[in-house]
Amino acid sequence: MTKIFKGNILFTPTPEKFTIIPHGHILVSEGKVKAVYQKLPEEYRNLEIIDYQDKLIIPGMNDLHCHASQYKHMGMAMDRELIPWLENYTFPEEAKFQDIKYAEKIYQRFIKEIWKQGTTRIVVFATVHKESTMKLLDMFIQSGLGAYVGKVNMDNNCPDYICETLEDSLKDTEEIIIKYGDKSSLVKPIITPRFAPSCSKKLLKGLGDLGKKHGIPVQSHLSENRKEVQWVKELFPDADSYGDVYKQYGLFGDTPTLMAHCSLSSEEEMTLMRENNVLAVHCPASNLNVGSGMMPIRKFINRGIKLGLGSDLSGGHTPSLMKTMVYAIQTSKIFWVNSEKQMDFLTNSEAFFIATKGGGSFFGKVGSFEEGYDFDALIIDDGELNYLDYTLEERLERFIYVGDDRHILHRYVRGSLIKEPVL
Amino acid sequence: MTKIFKGNILFTPTPEKFTIIPHGHILVSEGKVKAVYQKLPEEYRNLEIIDYQDKLIIPGMNDLHCHASQYKHMGMAMDRELIPWLENYTFPEEAKFQDIKYAEKIYQRFIKEIWKQGTTRIVVFATVHKESTMKLLDMFIQSGLGAYVGKVNMDNNCPDYICETLEDSLKDTEEIIIKYGDKSSLVKPIITPRFAPSCSKKLLKGLGDLGKKHGIPVQSHLSENRKEVQWVKELFPDADSYGDVYKQYGLFGDTPTLMAHCSLSSEEEMTLMRENNVLAVHCPASNLNVGSGMMPIRKFINRGIKLGLGSDLSGGHTPSLMKTMVYAIQTSKIFWVNSEKQMDFLTNSEAFFIATKGGGSFFGKVGSFEEGYDFDALIIDDGELNYLDYTLEERLERFIYVGDDRHILHRYVRGSLIKEPVL
Repeated sequence: MTKIFKGNILFTPTPEKFTIIPHGHILVSEGKVKAVYQKLPEEYRNLEIIDYQDKLIIPGMNDLHCHASQYKHMGMAMDRELIPWLENYTFPEEAKFQDIKYAEKIYQRFIKEIWKQGTTRIVVFATVHKESTMKLLDMFIQSGLGAYVGKVNMDNNCPDYICETLEDSLKDTEEIIIKYGDKSSLVKPIITPRFAPSCSKKLLKGLGDLGKKHGIPVQSHLSENRKEVQWVKELFPDADSYGDVYKQYGLFGDTPTLMAHCSLSSEEEMTLMRENNVLAVHCPASNLNVGSGMMPIRKFINRGIKLGLGSDLSGGHTPSLMKTMVYAIQTSKIFWVNSEKQMDFLTNSEAFFIATKGGGSFFGKVGSFEEGYDFDALIIDDGELNYLDYTLEERLERFIYVGDDRHILHRYVRGSLIKEPVL
Repeated sequence: MTKIFKGNILFTPTPEKFTIIPHGHILVSEGKVKAVYQKLPEEYRNLEIIDYQDKLIIPGMNDLHCHASQYKHMGMAMDRELIPWLENYTFPEEAKFQDIKYAEKIYQRFIKEIWKQGTTRIVVFATVHKESTMKLLDMFIQSGLGAYVGKVNMDNNCPDYICETLEDSLKDTEEIIIKYGDKSSLVKPIITPRFAPSCSKKLLKGLGDLGKKHGIPVQSHLSENRKEVQWVKELFPDADSYGDVYKQYGLFGDTPTLMAHCSLSSEEEMTLMRENNVLAVHCPASNLNVGSGMMPIRKFINRGIKLGLGSDLSGGHTPSLMKTMVYAIQTSKIFWVNSEKQMDFLTNSEAFFIATKGGGSFFGKVGSFEEGYDFDALIIDDGELNYLDYTLEERLERFIYVGDDRHILHRYVRGSLIKEPVL
């Protein structure tokens, strides 16, 4: 149960810079990192060594916001605005997940896709449907990847054909929690109100209560675009901010909470996030595609708010967290230019930190090769991208910018090699 | 010499919408499109039919701005600012092209890469070096792809080790023009002052004269970032705009001219472009990476200025014109949001038009399947991306957003199937 992984090791214990160990060794026991060595101590020389030679070993990618049920529309209808896009594409598509066979077909391709892209842990929205959400939980368990899977809750302001009753919504959610809460240590349910406007106040309260009763984390959307923020203000006039709506119902840090987008969060809302230890999920490709606001990520960093990255399929079009890092850096440069360089852009190590250790924190000790962390890793075979005089950091940057799934040789989750899922 | 290509045909005679012919036929004779038919007329039934069945047939991609010599740094040093990036990465790298063997090694990989990505015609900057520029011209001729190749001219404001004398710069440029001006109908030289600040006034004048004397087109950079625009104003106080500098020396529409970036072009400069029929090359990925200004492409469309897309390797990190289209649409949405939706974002058909027929216009009748156009085409095998109920337009959009070189089955230039270059 104890092994040595050898190769060119790169990770980010802190956002400021990469820790780089050329031809280094990672000692892994029971799926966890025990230590990282440049030179392997004498006492470990007899252990099994998995020698990846000149390849790169980096932490696995953590995708903190993704709609599994929208996989079929990834990279489509990008010239529709949000509302027609939801009405013509997303809601009719999600309604099909009533049919568990259909769900299975789409979820199979979805899980293979994220596996291929090097995502080792993910937090997903399923749909309102209990049966197909349980199917997705089962499929993730079978895959070996780590996941939080959310049955979507919505009983308000949505088309009849996809709307739940308050009672069904709560009952189905609790049934999933009871069945899957302790079934797997890697795959778990998460409370998932679609977003404040699609939930009645009773549903929001019921979900907050369920979360606290069972100790289940929470995910939702927050302050993504202007109309939405205005709408929430009208629906919940007593709340101090959009985030405060969730807070009032026990859905904002009462259990571990992540909120996607936060593009238009006010100063007040950011303070509330920090105080409640709510993790903000930056989805830069989606921000661009959907034409919602762009998250000013430097503000969140400066305020000490926890951060992760999200692909947000299918508002986002790329399942790759590498390409999501690129988008995060690029969009941060827009703020940099517009602020006359007062607002620094994201460095490579900061973006990498957010995609690995930042987002990984939602899953426990995940996303780094420090002692006690789960050994979630990708082995990068960048031979065809490489030139002999590149530094290791340059090789990693080039892989992130121009590499793709063809350069990911192996994927590990908690010490286990994860083969292509057969579902 | 006359053949029929059969498949699902999509192209954009105008930017407003796709012309789509499911299971249609393209009649190609001597490398040129004669006609496109839904139903093949009786008289052509005996011709050879190349049947691509359910695959997509689209025009080839035209990349109008790219630094071939920076290929090795594609996707690297993206967190450096422009000046340190030039000084520490780009100029030292370009200096190596003094060595023709080195140039050959990099250019081999470069040409294979753009072939792989579905670029069938390209306009590139080489370096200041005559010998390796001629090598690149030879290699393009051998490849079968279409290209304009520019020996870079710079005799001012550049490091000694890469600076030319006025005399050498003009002599070498003319030598290339004489040798390659009529050597190939697909691969030709282009006059390439690096940008106004790196050229003495005498060099600018000499290049303008050479262009007019030999009827050679011109490419350069224009109004990319604030410091550069300010610098040009200081260096050329008599010019009405940055573009007017080129105009004063016969490098702005006296022969066919393209200008990369134009992110910060003034109203006056845009008028000058339109009046002189200068083509603006939009390089959205580069704009984001380098943190220069973002080109407001809708303004150029509204003013009737000709447009093409550029990868701008290695300011840009992606050689794919598909991904460049995605970036063009995404960056246009920033203007859309910031203008309260007054400035429309690019539609899919507009982006596709710019990448095909728009940019293709620089090469002649290229980038469409209308009568008389060169048959430059890509065969897209999107089977693994596809679902049965997608429309052809949706399939194309999905390929552009999430597909890659693996989905490009064949590439044609002027009717010839172009195999992977062996150089």
